[in-house]
Amino acid sequence: MSDTRTNAGIDNVSVFRKMFTWSVPGERFITILTAGNLATTQALISLLEERTRTSADRDPELLSVPTMFQAAYLVGETLKSVIQSQSLTGQEADSKFGATIIIGGQVKGSEPRLFMVYPEGNFVEAGEETPFFQIGETKYGRPILLRAFSKDMSFNDAAKLLCVSFDSTLKANLSVGMPLDLLTYEADDFAPRHQMRLDADNQYFATTSNIWRDALQNALEQLPEFAFETDTDD
Amino acid sequence: MSDTRTNAGIDNVSVFRKMFTWSVPGERFITILTAGNLATTQALISLLEERTRTSADRDPELLSVPTMFQAAYLVGETLKSVIQSQSLTGQEADSKFGATIIIGGQVKGSEPRLFMVYPEGNFVEAGEETPFFQIGETKYGRPILLRAFSKDMSFNDAAKLLCVSFDSTLKANLSVGMPLDLLTYEADDFAPRHQMRLDADNQYFATTSNIWRDALQNALEQLPEFAFETDTDD
Repeated sequence: MSDTRTNAGIDNVSVFRKMFTWSVPGERFITILTAGNLATTQALISLLEERTRTSADRDPELLSVPTMFQAAYLVGETLKSVIQSQSLTGQEADSKFGATIIIGGQVKGSEPRLFMVYPEGNFVEAGEETPFFQIGETKYGRPILLRAFSKDMSFNDAAKLLCVSFDSTLKANLSVGMPLDLLTYEADDFAPRHQMRLDADNQYFATTSNIWRDALQNALEQLPEFAFETDTDD
Repeated sequence: MSDTRTNAGIDNVSVFRKMFTWSVPGERFITILTAGNLATTQALISLLEERTRTSADRDPELLSVPTMFQAAYLVGETLKSVIQSQSLTGQEADSKFGATIIIGGQVKGSEPRLFMVYPEGNFVEAGEETPFFQIGETKYGRPILLRAFSKDMSFNDAAKLLCVSFDSTLKANLSVGMPLDLLTYEADDFAPRHQMRLDADNQYFATTSNIWRDALQNALEQLPEFAFETDTDD
């Protein structure tokens, strides 16, 4: 799931897609989620697109790399070179032009894989102990993911959890905003199982947000009373 | 409430108090909470202490300033000069040596007041619409505060909420750690109403953390099912 808000200052807010997909039916499916400087991530996606579409281009292509590892490597190298070319003007540029990427998908003949790519171009893969990645404004929505995410969840339960997690972030930070893009991938589909956009007026999201707020307040009331007296040292 | 963990890299973790108090019985009570560079905050507190204890020192003193506004101003000016003196060696120093302060308390003759002081030395006051401040690693614990905090809460309910909020942060970030210091102040007491430390083995905190985790998971299960089918656009 990804939001769509980008901003250059709070008076310059726009909606841009941060989730991109490439596929060859029956053979491969790749999705990329982006966070960070919009010029950097747009250049990255444009370069990946050009390499995908121009058969004369001899560079490696997302649609022809033999493995997801090679796809992550391609994205990392492209990202690094975009940041370097935009950074030649100043020493603060590395952080200013930075971006972080999640790339997931499957190439026929191997399992689905999920990577997080850093601005430096290197990347890590999700595994048993770290089954999910977050990029961008990660902190507000993280506690509920840590407490409630399970690898065995259904897509429906995972989507519900993501709504709650994004709701926490949306409530706390103006740099994250609706609509939200959501995509699920089932092994060996080589196409999205579900792909949808939750708009600002999405009824499920609004209802869930209210029920969740009430549930948190109820849960808080159910906790044992805090007792100052028994532990005070004054 | 404040934690006590400071670190210079994850292999250099120490326990330091980040909550400090000054009082003149029956006349004033002031508490300061610190976040940021430890050298900066220790220098700040030392300078405030020296000015408090040395009667020969002609500088303004926390124990003699006529209002909480003047106290916040004193803290801001002292903080700014500490950061400037430590920053003379490099241009990145402003953020490196930065610190943020919460100062609250009451001087007889006026209401209790609460301020947040920035590294630049300026400060803002809590009010009707912004009744609480956070400093330091604020994001993980913020969503539950936004959803559940109310100005009308009892001290017991507020302490319970703070435990839950800190628990979210403790679970997500190694830079925040037990023990936690907790202080409450009731108008016209001119001394803390409660002052205690919750150690790593605090039974209430551990129990509450577990109950909260279960309650969140239950609350999540009670939310309406997420339905892909009704909204899909693929």
